[in-house]
Amino acid sequence: MSLNVGVIGTGMIGQDHIRRLTRVLSGVTVVAVNDMDQARAQAAAPAGAKVHPTPDALVADPDVQAVVICSWGPAHEEQLLACIAAGKPVFCEKPMVTSEAAALRIIEAEVAFGRRLVQVGFMRRFDADYRRLKAVIDTGTLGAPLMYYSKHRNASVPEGLYTSDMPLNDTLVHDADISRWLLSDEVTGVEVRVPRRSSRGKDLRDPVLVLLHMASGALVDVEISVNIGYGYDIRGEVSCEAGVAALPNRPAAVVTDAHGIRQAIPEDWRERFIEAYDQEFREWIVAAGQGTATGPSAWDGYAATLVADAALRAVDSGRLEAVGMIAKPALYS
Amino acid sequence: MSLNVGVIGTGMIGQDHIRRLTRVLSGVTVVAVNDMDQARAQAAAPAGAKVHPTPDALVADPDVQAVVICSWGPAHEEQLLACIAAGKPVFCEKPMVTSEAAALRIIEAEVAFGRRLVQVGFMRRFDADYRRLKAVIDTGTLGAPLMYYSKHRNASVPEGLYTSDMPLNDTLVHDADISRWLLSDEVTGVEVRVPRRSSRGKDLRDPVLVLLHMASGALVDVEISVNIGYGYDIRGEVSCEAGVAALPNRPAAVVTDAHGIRQAIPEDWRERFIEAYDQEFREWIVAAGQGTATGPSAWDGYAATLVADAALRAVDSGRLEAVGMIAKPALYS
Amino acid sequence: MSLNVGVIGTGMIGQDHIRRLTRVLSGVTVVAVNDMDQARAQAAAPAGAKVHPTPDALVADPDVQAVVICSWGPAHEEQLLACIAAGKPVFCEKPMVTSEAAALRIIEAEVAFGRRLVQVGFMRRFDADYRRLKAVIDTGTLGAPLMYYSKHRNASVPEGLYTSDMPLNDTLVHDADISRWLLSDEVTGVEVRVPRRSSRGKDLRDPVLVLLHMASGALVDVEISVNIGYGYDIRGEVSCEAGVAALPNRPAAVVTDAHGIRQAIPEDWRERFIEAYDQEFREWIVAAGQGTATGPSAWDGYAATLVADAALRAVDSGRLEAVGMIAKPALYS
Amino acid sequence: MSLNVGVIGTGMIGQDHIRRLTRVLSGVTVVAVNDMDQARAQAAAPAGAKVHPTPDALVADPDVQAVVICSWGPAHEEQLLACIAAGKPVFCEKPMVTSEAAALRIIEAEVAFGRRLVQVGFMRRFDADYRRLKAVIDTGTLGAPLMYYSKHRNASVPEGLYTSDMPLNDTLVHDADISRWLLSDEVTGVEVRVPRRSSRGKDLRDPVLVLLHMASGALVDVEISVNIGYGYDIRGEVSCEAGVAALPNRPAAVVTDAHGIRQAIPEDWRERFIEAYDQEFREWIVAAGQGTATGPSAWDGYAATLVADAALRAVDSGRLEAVGMIAKPALYS
Repeated sequence: MSLNVGVIGTGMIGQDHIRRLTRVLSGVTVVAVNDMDQARAQAAAPAGAKVHPTPDALVADPDVQAVVICSWGPAHEEQLLACIAAGKPVFCEKPMVTSEAAALRIIEAEVAFGRRLVQVGFMRRFDADYRRLKAVIDTGTLGAPLMYYSKHRNASVPEGLYTSDMPLNDTLVHDADISRWLLSDEVTGVEVRVPRRSSRGKDLRDPVLVLLHMASGALVDVEISVNIGYGYDIRGEVSCEAGVAALPNRPAAVVTDAHGIRQAIPEDWRERFIEAYDQEFREWIVAAGQGTATGPSAWDGYAATLVADAALRAVDSGRLEAVGMIAKPALYS
Repeated sequence: MSLNVGVIGTGMIGQDHIRRLTRVLSGVTVVAVNDMDQARAQAAAPAGAKVHPTPDALVADPDVQAVVICSWGPAHEEQLLACIAAGKPVFCEKPMVTSEAAALRIIEAEVAFGRRLVQVGFMRRFDADYRRLKAVIDTGTLGAPLMYYSKHRNASVPEGLYTSDMPLNDTLVHDADISRWLLSDEVTGVEVRVPRRSSRGKDLRDPVLVLLHMASGALVDVEISVNIGYGYDIRGEVSCEAGVAALPNRPAAVVTDAHGIRQAIPEDWRERFIEAYDQEFREWIVAAGQGTATGPSAWDGYAATLVADAALRAVDSGRLEAVGMIAKPALYS
Repeated sequence: MSLNVGVIGTGMIGQDHIRRLTRVLSGVTVVAVNDMDQARAQAAAPAGAKVHPTPDALVADPDVQAVVICSWGPAHEEQLLACIAAGKPVFCEKPMVTSEAAALRIIEAEVAFGRRLVQVGFMRRFDADYRRLKAVIDTGTLGAPLMYYSKHRNASVPEGLYTSDMPLNDTLVHDADISRWLLSDEVTGVEVRVPRRSSRGKDLRDPVLVLLHMASGALVDVEISVNIGYGYDIRGEVSCEAGVAALPNRPAAVVTDAHGIRQAIPEDWRERFIEAYDQEFREWIVAAGQGTATGPSAWDGYAATLVADAALRAVDSGRLEAVGMIAKPALYS
Repeated sequence: MSLNVGVIGTGMIGQDHIRRLTRVLSGVTVVAVNDMDQARAQAAAPAGAKVHPTPDALVADPDVQAVVICSWGPAHEEQLLACIAAGKPVFCEKPMVTSEAAALRIIEAEVAFGRRLVQVGFMRRFDADYRRLKAVIDTGTLGAPLMYYSKHRNASVPEGLYTSDMPLNDTLVHDADISRWLLSDEVTGVEVRVPRRSSRGKDLRDPVLVLLHMASGALVDVEISVNIGYGYDIRGEVSCEAGVAALPNRPAAVVTDAHGIRQAIPEDWRERFIEAYDQEFREWIVAAGQGTATGPSAWDGYAATLVADAALRAVDSGRLEAVGMIAKPALYS
């Protein structure tokens, strides 16, 4: 009764998910792997797993009941379409695809298939703190959410390799997705403001302030800072009509010493979200075992793509850039 | 050696300051009062204090060494100019004056006099929490401030009497002044965004999000909500290059019961800032006794006027409205 | 490569562990169950698992590689000795046994066998908060621990069924075990003081204050309250030579509303320790797969028995009651 | 309408109170001083104040309406009795007197006089945090208090000069007084336990754990640590039948940096309690102006003496030492 899974892409994140699927979670077996680098695939394959020469071969393998895609972004579209064609549930790491047109092709294919198969790797939705925050908002006792503050503070980025568009292209999607989910809302426009630059990252446009205008009228106020040095510090606060709800401090020991009364900050995203990754797959396994997906959808991947595109336009224009989504197919309601 | 003070305006706030000057603070005596309503002045006058028929008479009284102005805003300019003409230190409640032109006339007069005489009632600068926050920033260990978040959440406003311009005209001045002071910076532009309106205040534009663009490039992100119901909740957080510093929770008992582990929120601005008002006058008395003023200046009152004007323009235009200040006179450096 | 486990005792806790072993954790299969009530065993058995008529039959089953004991306390000794005789790793719920003599017999058998097989169900040692607390202490930067405060506050107990000895017999063992573990120390004496009784539990001796005198000289100060009503509130604070370290608040959303700024308290021990139970078995499975046990040992079960016995004597005598342990066998070092 | 005060004893604390009475508080004038060291008295005297050769001369001075005693402890009895004989309100620093017999003589004299004149310097009762804590308890919503935890952690003590009896003789009186006040209760017995000694203070009996048995049955659990190094850290928690209430963190800026998310701890008692001292005198001035005293009384000074005596006996005996107070005179009800 274990779900047989094939993993495409056995780089760092693929290896981590294989570890998770084989050593942490129950009800799942990795039966096949594939990677552009055959030797890397071989090294990453658990005992007894097949190593397929191509993604197509892996998807076509009758022993593979569901697929995990950890290849690089530009390859996702073709692999996702193959999974949908084969009717196999598929977990796809971010970004789902790299263009609006590609996202629409995924949606079209999945809608034509008639059942959700695709889950996109927005793991924050599985984090216990975010879930408790959403639970508070969803009770409605605080009234409608009017503002959401999302602070995305990252310890450091590799100088030279990291470019100024990355916060808007790669990082903002997390804030945008969690905002849409927390507020049960859609983004209709994006503004970007660039404050004084941090001297810690030479030529980097850092930090940035992003305003997401939501369909309800709510405003989402995002700070992205990628070079704060002291740790990985994710905060979120929803300002509602009759109250405020926020993420708590991370549960570190409360130490009192010469530095004051204090709690440690996580070092990086791995430390911060490790349980969320586990839970993300725990729930995916259950849904995939039933031939479908229940987590973040192709629709959510499409929305993320549009927001990132609009943010990049907004930083250039200095204006409010509209996010124009197609009518939402019933499959995603 | 006690400072002899005359109070102009004996309405609610005037009476409160008379109480403070006579019953809380040392080194000061209220020797004269004036109010448009002579009976009200009589009732408010401490034993032994004179009741003057006009503000001018009070300012001219040789027994009056320093003046406290608590009359309504439109009367301030004339009274301030009279004090400056008489060379008497003067504390003036907000707003200093009601137009840019008037503010410039105060500055001109004071500069011509050659010594600071005017202090404007921005009491937050005397609040112990804000002072500790500024002390942390000023040490420089967190690096340059890049963003400042100011949340101004007020329990309720009187329906009908309170209009949509008031948050920008009366409330924002506090956030603008404390931002300028905390960041040792000036406002150069103002943007206003209007999120989904709270259903708690019928036709009110509430909340509003204000972005203050500072001369250093830092961005100040202000939320003003005036009808949150649950209390008076002022928060502030400075995001710096290498760390973050924020106002603490107010020092309420930590109660654990069926509502969780919790601390009470102040009911209103009186509860929140009562010690700040005391401290504001404590320091004013010392400076006034030396014939001058050291707290928020006419320059600060001028800046507040410009920011409020720009915010009102920005809510209409939807654009970034510039704040154009004259060159700063040496008196205010 | 899955560990085949047999479960003895399929009451409430046995059923919960079967759920955990079959639906939450990886690398383990429940292949056999047993219960005094054959029908209950049948109902609790996962698909494909055998139902054995006796504990002995289950332990003897060659398909059973490791055993989980969830029967009632008086039956544990015989079942544990059977597991040791069979050389099978065994997880045993609290209490390990119900007398000092029985505890010594378990130790004697395990020492004779020559390898650790027994793990006792002190799940707090697997709680992430306690682990972070211990990590802080073990770094040594705060100096030696001098006092440990353990507050054990329980929402309610069933009137009539719950007796005044239960806090000392059943509850204190958790505080004693976690104290020994956190401080890497042993209990040498126990005092009990009985404060004013709570009116919430009629004839109950509640709360109680217990002082554990440790071999190092450190004092452990335990409050056990079983009828506080508002939730399940476990706190711990270590006072060291140069600093203090404490358990954090549980990671609930920070809500600000008419009740203040607040975080929810867990409702009961299930909510508080559910992840700890999962982790406890996760690590047990790994060790049992290697034919041994690494968690709380028979020595720890023995210590808990002695502390509970001493506490019951101390409440009667009003004195310091000594805890006299045998020399620690090398197996437990 | 200003209260004319004479100050006996112009050492460090006398000088600080003179500063407070002349420069911080209103409605009071220091008109006379006295000290064993005439030159020191001269130096400390505010402009216009008389310097009296003896305490008796100061008390007898018809210009002196009320007296502040800051001399050393053994001199207090005679000075207090002189004030009572003169019918003059008197504020006396701790310890009120140095023996039970002396305390009873003060009470006898004051009762004979028929009106409260004596206030003892237990300043914690005037601290805003303690007052909020008491307010929560006094509402009764948490039920009766059953346990109170008082942690008295001091940064350092001078090696050699500080002896092992001082925590019980000088420090414990604060915890005892605040416990009696918070719980509206009396101490009936004292136990002392001595944990492992801190290696930071060579031959010092540090920390100590003191249990105060209260008349209601409530238990007060006091930790006194005098050499913790990191700051002055005072904590208090009341465990009631249906909830818990505790002192909050001190209102320091919340800084997030490489040391975590943190708030500073006060350096010493001056920083921690400076506002409490101001408030203590603010209220004393009002009561003294009405010819009486409302703060901590001679009865409270008597209780503190008995608790300290019992604690010293208890550390030697290892037993519960009873505190036997006389019947409470109506004057103190």
